[in-house]
Amino acid sequence: MKCKFCSDKPVVHLKPSNLYLCENHFLERVEEVTKRAIKKFNMFDNKDRILVAVSGGKDSLSLLYLLNKLGYYTRGLYINLGIEEREYSDESFEYVKKFSEKFHMDIYTYNLKEEKGKGITDIMKHRKNYKACSVCGIVKRYIMNKIALEKNFNVLATGHNLDDEVSRLFGNIVFWQEGYLLHQNPVLEEEKNKLLKKVKPFCFISEKQTALYAYLRGIEYVRNECPYSIDAKTIFYKNILNRVEENSSGAKLRFYKGFLDIQKKYFKKVHKKYTEIMGEEKECKICGMPTLKEICGFCRIFERV
Amino acid sequence: MKCKFCSDKPVVHLKPSNLYLCENHFLERVEEVTKRAIKKFNMFDNKDRILVAVSGGKDSLSLLYLLNKLGYYTRGLYINLGIEEREYSDESFEYVKKFSEKFHMDIYTYNLKEEKGKGITDIMKHRKNYKACSVCGIVKRYIMNKIALEKNFNVLATGHNLDDEVSRLFGNIVFWQEGYLLHQNPVLEEEKNKLLKKVKPFCFISEKQTALYAYLRGIEYVRNECPYSIDAKTIFYKNILNRVEENSSGAKLRFYKGFLDIQKKYFKKVHKKYTEIMGEEKECKICGMPTLKEICGFCRIFERV
Repeated sequence: MKCKFCSDKPVVHLKPSNLYLCENHFLERVEEVTKRAIKKFNMFDNKDRILVAVSGGKDSLSLLYLLNKLGYYTRGLYINLGIEEREYSDESFEYVKKFSEKFHMDIYTYNLKEEKGKGITDIMKHRKNYKACSVCGIVKRYIMNKIALEKNFNVLATGHNLDDEVSRLFGNIVFWQEGYLLHQNPVLEEEKNKLLKKVKPFCFISEKQTALYAYLRGIEYVRNECPYSIDAKTIFYKNILNRVEENSSGAKLRFYKGFLDIQKKYFKKVHKKYTEIMGEEKECKICGMPTLKEICGFCRIFERV
Repeated sequence: MKCKFCSDKPVVHLKPSNLYLCENHFLERVEEVTKRAIKKFNMFDNKDRILVAVSGGKDSLSLLYLLNKLGYYTRGLYINLGIEEREYSDESFEYVKKFSEKFHMDIYTYNLKEEKGKGITDIMKHRKNYKACSVCGIVKRYIMNKIALEKNFNVLATGHNLDDEVSRLFGNIVFWQEGYLLHQNPVLEEEKNKLLKKVKPFCFISEKQTALYAYLRGIEYVRNECPYSIDAKTIFYKNILNRVEENSSGAKLRFYKGFLDIQKKYFKKVHKKYTEIMGEEKECKICGMPTLKEICGFCRIFERV
């Protein structure tokens, strides 16, 4: 068995397109597909300043590496969320530091506990009725945006891969979350000069591929799942979609691309803006950021703990 | 433990609504929910003549029984498809005859092999590249419609239950089958006086409920799966949706009802008619029935074998 494009030994078989690829051609393909997504969705170009949120995981570290390699102006931001169970945040941070040293790339850090007095573990102790994944999501989005504005970046990039996107899509469809279905996209445009443009350049790259990319590029990454995510619906949906993929190769990618077409053709035609469904946005009374309520989600969390 | 509405012993626990129901209240509820679907979707009323397609299975026999009990003008039609493997068609027919005798209801029969010279088994022997489920679907829809027109019925009812509907919906969504998504509905209106109105009164009743309804009403039914359906995608999707339902009780019903809302709000607003996506319909050159090609699917099958 040979690589499709040269005589080297293949390291991977991409089933949907039935491609056997050697190390170099696999790495090239991941970079190509990512480049194409960046272009197709008009994510950014050489004039943009891109802040990449890194968690210490395979996706975000690979993304930072890859965007840097492609020559974009980019820098990582690590948010230490203060997840103390199984020393998760500390462990993740170790991988981020290793990456930074190995590839000589400075990475900003933000320590939630130091800055706000409480980390995720503290918050969850105080508010048993909160869902950790929701709290964490609100905090990360807020901080990423805040730091990017402070440091004069104009685009936020996250490492969400195809599996992340389809599992989220699946959940949104099973429960027909209208607002989310309108909103789910590899690109969210800037709003009111306050919420920066957000992009997901790995939206067409599967989880297996980002893992292999990281491995082949010598990127070490945290392998443990977040201690709070064990029962998360996302993992359940990912398993289901893996079964669908096994049954019908390429199903995930078709499902996702098909959705984006349908979204454009139907959802966007009927409602032009997210706010038409979700309501008009106001300014948070505490921090001034856009919010649907009087006080934004982030400030509400820290008001209450 | 008692029935929610009386002091009798429950025979069933309907998890999504957390209802424990005795035999009588369960039967009443199935009839109530069916009546509500008939009304909500304007399926038919006392002036209509309804032909119910019966297969010998739990869903269609229960539907015929129930519609009759509710006082509608209705009659069953059994199509003997000539599935000879494991004597499937003969066995199904036995259950239809038993039902007819036990409940004193005449049922029309149509024998594909006698009328057209070939049954499904013969067709599949000749055309290895055909998918049995597709052939069978085309044949059943055609014959049901033909017999209904001949016998002066104006509505066709089938026993499709909630599980049938959601598994079909799931498949159509994973592959974003635009035309089917626009078309999938508990009611398909009459077209050009030739394709009669088609309705699915059990669209909100789960498979488990139709099985229990049949059992409690003393309806015996064929329990073997069709020999051709063993690998069918529908069964795979049903399993997946059962897992989703286990994980989140009531998910199937919400998924289906939510879809119908979204369909109305988005899909129907952009395209008003199925034919706008699928193309204009012509008349079949052989039989004169509406078709997207020169010759309709039914005539094509019998032209080639």
